[in-house]
Amino acid sequence: MKNKFLSEQYIINKYLKKLNFNKSESYNFRNDGAFFKIPKNNKIIVTNDTIIENVDFFKSDPPKSIANKIITCNLSDISSMGAVPYAYTLSLCLPKKLNNEWLNLFTKSLFSFQKKFDFFLIGGDLSKSDKIIISSNFFGFVKEKKILTRSGAMTNDDIWVTGNLGDSSIGLKIKQNKIKLLNNEKKFFIKHYLFPKHFSYGSKIINYASSAIDISDGFYGDLNKLIFESNKGAFIESKNLPFSPKTKKLLKNNKININYLLSGGDDYELIFTSNPKHSLKIKSIFKNINVKISKVGRIINKKCVYMDNKKVNFINKSFDHFS
Amino acid sequence: MKNKFLSEQYIINKYLKKLNFNKSESYNFRNDGAFFKIPKNNKIIVTNDTIIENVDFFKSDPPKSIANKIITCNLSDISSMGAVPYAYTLSLCLPKKLNNEWLNLFTKSLFSFQKKFDFFLIGGDLSKSDKIIISSNFFGFVKEKKILTRSGAMTNDDIWVTGNLGDSSIGLKIKQNKIKLLNNEKKFFIKHYLFPKHFSYGSKIINYASSAIDISDGFYGDLNKLIFESNKGAFIESKNLPFSPKTKKLLKNNKININYLLSGGDDYELIFTSNPKHSLKIKSIFKNINVKISKVGRIINKKCVYMDNKKVNFINKSFDHFS
Repeated sequence: MKNKFLSEQYIINKYLKKLNFNKSESYNFRNDGAFFKIPKNNKIIVTNDTIIENVDFFKSDPPKSIANKIITCNLSDISSMGAVPYAYTLSLCLPKKLNNEWLNLFTKSLFSFQKKFDFFLIGGDLSKSDKIIISSNFFGFVKEKKILTRSGAMTNDDIWVTGNLGDSSIGLKIKQNKIKLLNNEKKFFIKHYLFPKHFSYGSKIINYASSAIDISDGFYGDLNKLIFESNKGAFIESKNLPFSPKTKKLLKNNKININYLLSGGDDYELIFTSNPKHSLKIKSIFKNINVKISKVGRIINKKCVYMDNKKVNFINKSFDHFS
Repeated sequence: MKNKFLSEQYIINKYLKKLNFNKSESYNFRNDGAFFKIPKNNKIIVTNDTIIENVDFFKSDPPKSIANKIITCNLSDISSMGAVPYAYTLSLCLPKKLNNEWLNLFTKSLFSFQKKFDFFLIGGDLSKSDKIIISSNFFGFVKEKKILTRSGAMTNDDIWVTGNLGDSSIGLKIKQNKIKLLNNEKKFFIKHYLFPKHFSYGSKIINYASSAIDISDGFYGDLNKLIFESNKGAFIESKNLPFSPKTKKLLKNNKININYLLSGGDDYELIFTSNPKHSLKIKSIFKNINVKISKVGRIINKKCVYMDNKKVNFINKSFDHFS
C-alpha cells in the first residue's frame, strides 16, 4: 500500500473506531478525552502496561501475538485485583512502514479479545516511532467492596497457583535458540509464548482470597513480592507446583531447569492465598470454571521462602524491566 | 553513576514514589494497579497523550522541558473538557544510559506541576528503550453535569481564543534553524517552545461555553475539528487574532507568515464558543483569572472557514501525528 493512506485519521477511521463498540463514553474518538460510566456500588480500578519491540516481543512476531500480549498483561492485572474488565486506552507508537495487513490483523485480534472478555477501547493516542511500542491503561470494575491486593496473606494461609508454570518461558528459550527440541515438541511451547492466556476469574475468588498477584515476572519473583507486601514468608512443596505434561517431560529428561521455569516471565497465572477453611470452596469454584488449581504451599511467619526444606535465595530470580 | 543503580525498583523508590503524594489510591506503587476515589456527583474523565524523542522533543532538550510537555499536553486536554486534574499514570520508556541527574530534574519538574495544579501519580510502568518515549493517561473530575466537548457550537456563537498564538511554533522554527533571529529575540520564543503553558481554567467557563477544543495541533486545524464536530463554519477576523508583541513585530517585518503561526502546534490555548449573551460574563471571568481573552470571530451556518472575507483552504493546515 502507499504511505499516503497511513494518515492518523485513516488508521483511526479504518481500524480503531470499530473497537469502541459505539460506546458513548468514547465520544467516537472525536474528543480530546473520554468519560467513565460507573455502575452504582462499583469501584473503578486502573492498570498500566507497556510492551516494546525487542524487549517484550520480536519484530517478526505475528501482529496477533503482539495484540495478545498487550491485552493479556493488562487483563491479568485486572483479574488479579478481583476486577472485571471495562475499557482501555491504547497509545500506539508505530513505524510508518507498517502496512494495512499488519493493522488489520492486529486490530482484529484486539476486537476478538474485547468480544470475549467484554470491554471496549475508550480512547488513545497514535504516534510515529522507529520501533513498535504499545502502552495501555486498562480500567476494571470491582463489584464487591474489597479490592484484592498483594498484602493480606496470613500465617498458615494456603498458597494456590492457577494453571501451569513455565510453558511460555520455554517458548522464549526456543525463540532465542537456547534450547534444542524436536520440531513437534517446539510447537506447544512457542504457542504459549506467542499467545499467552491469563487467568481471568479473579472476581470469583475475591471473597475467599486474602491476597493475590498475577505471575508476570516469574513465580519466584511474584511470590516474593506477595510475601514482602504481606510481611510473611512461604513454604513451597516442589511436588505440588503445576507443570504441563510436556514440561514435566523436559524436567525429567534434564532438558530444562526448574529454577528457570520458576523465574521466567509471562505465565499470567495467579498466585493467591486463602484461609485453609475455604479450601473446599476454592476447589469447587475452580471445578465450576474448569480451571486447574494447585495448592503449592502455605504462608509462614518467617520472612523467607522454603522450597521443600531448602531456603530459596531470591537474588536475580525476578525479571527486572529495566535491567 | 554506575548502571547497576538504575534498576526498576531503584527508580521507583528514589524518583517516582514521592510523586504519589501518599495517596491510598496508588497503593504506594506496591500493587498491580490503583483505584479511583471519585467525589460524589463528580464525573471522571480520561485523556491520553504520548511524546516521543525526535518527534515531540529533541534528545538534548532539558529534562524539565520534557516533563513540561507530557504534563501540559494532557492538562490542556483535561481543561478543554471543563475538568480539573485528579491523577495520572506514567509509562516511561527510557534508555539505560539516562543518569540520576536526568531523572532528578525530570521528576522534580513533575513534582512542581503536581503541586501547582493539585494532582498525583497513581501508577505506571517503566521500560527500557532506545529512545525516550513517555505516555500518560490523565484523569480529571467534572463537577458540573456537563462535560465540554468539540460539538455544540451554535450559529452566531462568539469564537474566543485564550492567550496568544504561535510563540511556541516560532521557537520550534528557531530550534530547526529555519528562521534567523538575533540572540536576544530568540530567548522568548525558545522558552515558549521548551516550556509551553496551557490554559488551565476550562472548568470556569463550563456553564457559558457551547463547545471547546485546546489548540495542540495549530489554530486552523483545531478550529476545523471544532466546526466539523459542531456541523458549522466559522468567520474569523484576522485583526482580532491574539499574538504577543514580539510575534507581532516579526509579522510586521515579514519574518514569519501568519499561516505558519496558525498551523503550528503546541499553543495549548483554548478555542471556545459561546452565545453572545454571555460576552460580558466571559470578559469578567477572564479579568478575574487574569488571562488574556480575544473574541476572534463567530460561528456561521455554512460549513467552511472565512478569514476576513477570504475562504480558508484547510489542506495540510493541521499537524498529523503520523505523517
